Amino acid sequence: MYVSIINIGDELLIGQVVNTNASNMSRMLIAAGMDVREVVTIADDAAAIRSNLERSLSHSDVVLITGGLGPTKDDITKTTLCDFFHSHLVENAEALANIQRIFDEKGFPLTDVNRQQSWVPECCTMVNNVLGTAPGMWFEHEGKVVVSLPGVPFEMINLMETEIVPRLQAYFKTDYILNKNILVQGIGESFLSDRIEHWELALPKTIRLAYLPQAGMVKLRLTARGTDKNLLQNQIDEAVKGLYPLAGEFIVGEDLESLPELVAYRMKKAHKTLATAESCTGGTIASKLTALAGASDYFKGGVVSYTNEVKNGVLGVKSATLEHHTAVSEETVREMAEGARRVLGADYAIATTGIAGPSGATPTQPVGTVWIAVASEKETIAICKCFGSDRLRTIERAANESYSLLIKQLTKEV
Amino acid sequence: MYVSIINIGDELLIGQVVNTNASNMSRMLIAAGMDVREVVTIADDAAAIRSNLERSLSHSDVVLITGGLGPTKDDITKTTLCDFFHSHLVENAEALANIQRIFDEKGFPLTDVNRQQSWVPECCTMVNNVLGTAPGMWFEHEGKVVVSLPGVPFEMINLMETEIVPRLQAYFKTDYILNKNILVQGIGESFLSDRIEHWELALPKTIRLAYLPQAGMVKLRLTARGTDKNLLQNQIDEAVKGLYPLAGEFIVGEDLESLPELVAYRMKKAHKTLATAESCTGGTIASKLTALAGASDYFKGGVVSYTNEVKNGVLGVKSATLEHHTAVSEETVREMAEGARRVLGADYAIATTGIAGPSGATPTQPVGTVWIAVASEKETIAICKCFGSDRLRTIERAANESYSLLIKQLTKEV
Repeated sequence: MYVSIINIGDELLIGQVVNTNASNMSRMLIAAGMDVREVVTIADDAAAIRSNLERSLSHSDVVLITGGLGPTKDDITKTTLCDFFHSHLVENAEALANIQRIFDEKGFPLTDVNRQQSWVPECCTMVNNVLGTAPGMWFEHEGKVVVSLPGVPFEMINLMETEIVPRLQAYFKTDYILNKNILVQGIGESFLSDRIEHWELALPKTIRLAYLPQAGMVKLRLTARGTDKNLLQNQIDEAVKGLYPLAGEFIVGEDLESLPELVAYRMKKAHKTLATAESCTGGTIASKLTALAGASDYFKGGVVSYTNEVKNGVLGVKSATLEHHTAVSEETVREMAEGARRVLGADYAIATTGIAGPSGATPTQPVGTVWIAVASEKETIAICKCFGSDRLRTIERAANESYSLLIKQLTKEV
Repeated sequence: MYVSIINIGDELLIGQVVNTNASNMSRMLIAAGMDVREVVTIADDAAAIRSNLERSLSHSDVVLITGGLGPTKDDITKTTLCDFFHSHLVENAEALANIQRIFDEKGFPLTDVNRQQSWVPECCTMVNNVLGTAPGMWFEHEGKVVVSLPGVPFEMINLMETEIVPRLQAYFKTDYILNKNILVQGIGESFLSDRIEHWELALPKTIRLAYLPQAGMVKLRLTARGTDKNLLQNQIDEAVKGLYPLAGEFIVGEDLESLPELVAYRMKKAHKTLATAESCTGGTIASKLTALAGASDYFKGGVVSYTNEVKNGVLGVKSATLEHHTAVSEETVREMAEGARRVLGADYAIATTGIAGPSGATPTQPVGTVWIAVASEKETIAICKCFGSDRLRTIERAANESYSLLIKQLTKEV
């Protein structure tokens, strides 16, 4: 069963907003056993909406549309769909009651513009959006389904989870899809590919392999698809087993999406606590860990030490160290990690100090130079990397390297 | 001049990777005066690549393709383009030298798989990718241009900036496009729309208005397009002038993309320094500020105090306060902000403490409750908000509210 996604919004085409709706919708659809054929992003333009809707219907069973349902003049998705299905707008009592409730809760008066959001094409089934004022709309058309959803990410996600995915599963009969992620670290994509070539060629036809390189790591994803769930699971298990003799020393985790998830899993399993001391990464290491629910089970806290005074005054890095070795040095990063362990009272601490750029380079240290340390009760280890001139990439890669270094140390010690 | 973007990659359709390439490319193209007609995301599938390329060429002058150029078996973009243009692959000496250099720098031996990356269709112009092993390819076809770029974000961005955008500007004659952003805070999209309706209707035809709601704020974007740059600038200036009498009290900044940019601008202008004390936001406030180059001009550092011990031991929040008022309280957030100012030696400090969820709710405090404080030499102000049950949204909105509160305090005091 094939789904096409049409994301509508000038803000997406102009590049000021990253389209997270596409990836969130795809993930939910895939997990429910549906194939995403394509994602199209277009402007709030009636002709573009019509032609893409026609084309998507020609090759897909379901077309999911987001955006253009707001109360402002640039939002034209609803009237365009109304024309497309030769229908007319009627006020929907349930949608109106929902909008009224939201305004009552905020203590705002209902404006005409907002009241109009309760109007939907007569031919559709209104799908109530409890988190917002723009209702979802479900159209059935020659055995196919078209759904229009608000573009506000959390409203869309809630509607997809609670209403649209279950309704699609009931309407269509879908294959089972099983996904398996394997995180690989310390080997490039092409070298990995060489190593596992024969294994890859021998995979059963039901299994598809994808290489997903990320900053400092590669995620291998095996996707199995078919009607026999047990068979698929066995095939995946066999395939994973065959991978270890070929690349086992680089596999850092299974069934996890990212290194922060792996850190959380390993720290909790080891019943150890963690602290951070961040200079050039500026809080990114801590924020990625705390973005995951349950971080407080192992994460004690962190210090963002953007100045020497904070390194010295809060983390206890010696003035002599900062003076003789500078802030970006092995000596400083070690004292930062050890200071974070001590000051924040944690079993393990990660520390980073470096030159994220664009300024700050020295004759011996180019932009992108980062020292990373992990301190434990037993020892402190430190590494130096150069991540190049892109500030955000350096921050991201330094964070990922720090997670990897911690995981390696945990593997050694716990 | 119209551009279509085709992003190729199974990982994009399965939703495990957010498509940032589309937004980055769009932003660069728009800034160069080119219109993005649509963005299509498709799988590593030859038929889909062909049909979308044909269709994009039917309505656009330029088709930019990313992805599918890696050394692994799932990457088929190059051979598909080769077939499409009835060409054949030839080794490109410059591309090979570039690949050899990259491998030499890493100290790795060149594999056959990597050497093959230097092969490009004979009919294209190779565009050297100094940051990676997959070369860019420029095809000219019946007055239109097709460009294939690697999907690795920083490689794509560098090629776009240094090679592709300048080449497109030279090849096509483009309109001037001027953008103006106005950040609005403290009023919802629909109320704002009501207030400025007449102004919006009276805008000249050369100007287009877009509402870009973000967590806790709305960005208004005026886009002017035409051949007379001075006329466009005057029209934008006039339009902005007319907005202030209608909504001036909600306008927090112009010409900035985001609240962190506004914080950086205002702090540097005021020659003041900033510190953070984050509990539920877990480093996000600091990491968004330090993601911007030049943060060290005003940002001293921060403490992520995920436990009471850190709030007490590092920030100096009194044990009695934590005991009598709990960690999520006005008293605690005030002491956190004042402690951060003192301990980190800054003029201003932001503090947050709350329940990001999903667990941690109490009978009186639901998930999403966040206390936010800003401390200065003169006073400490604190507000309480409830952001709902979505953890990441609560973190993001709390960060944005904290920036707004700081900006309001700066406006009052500086």
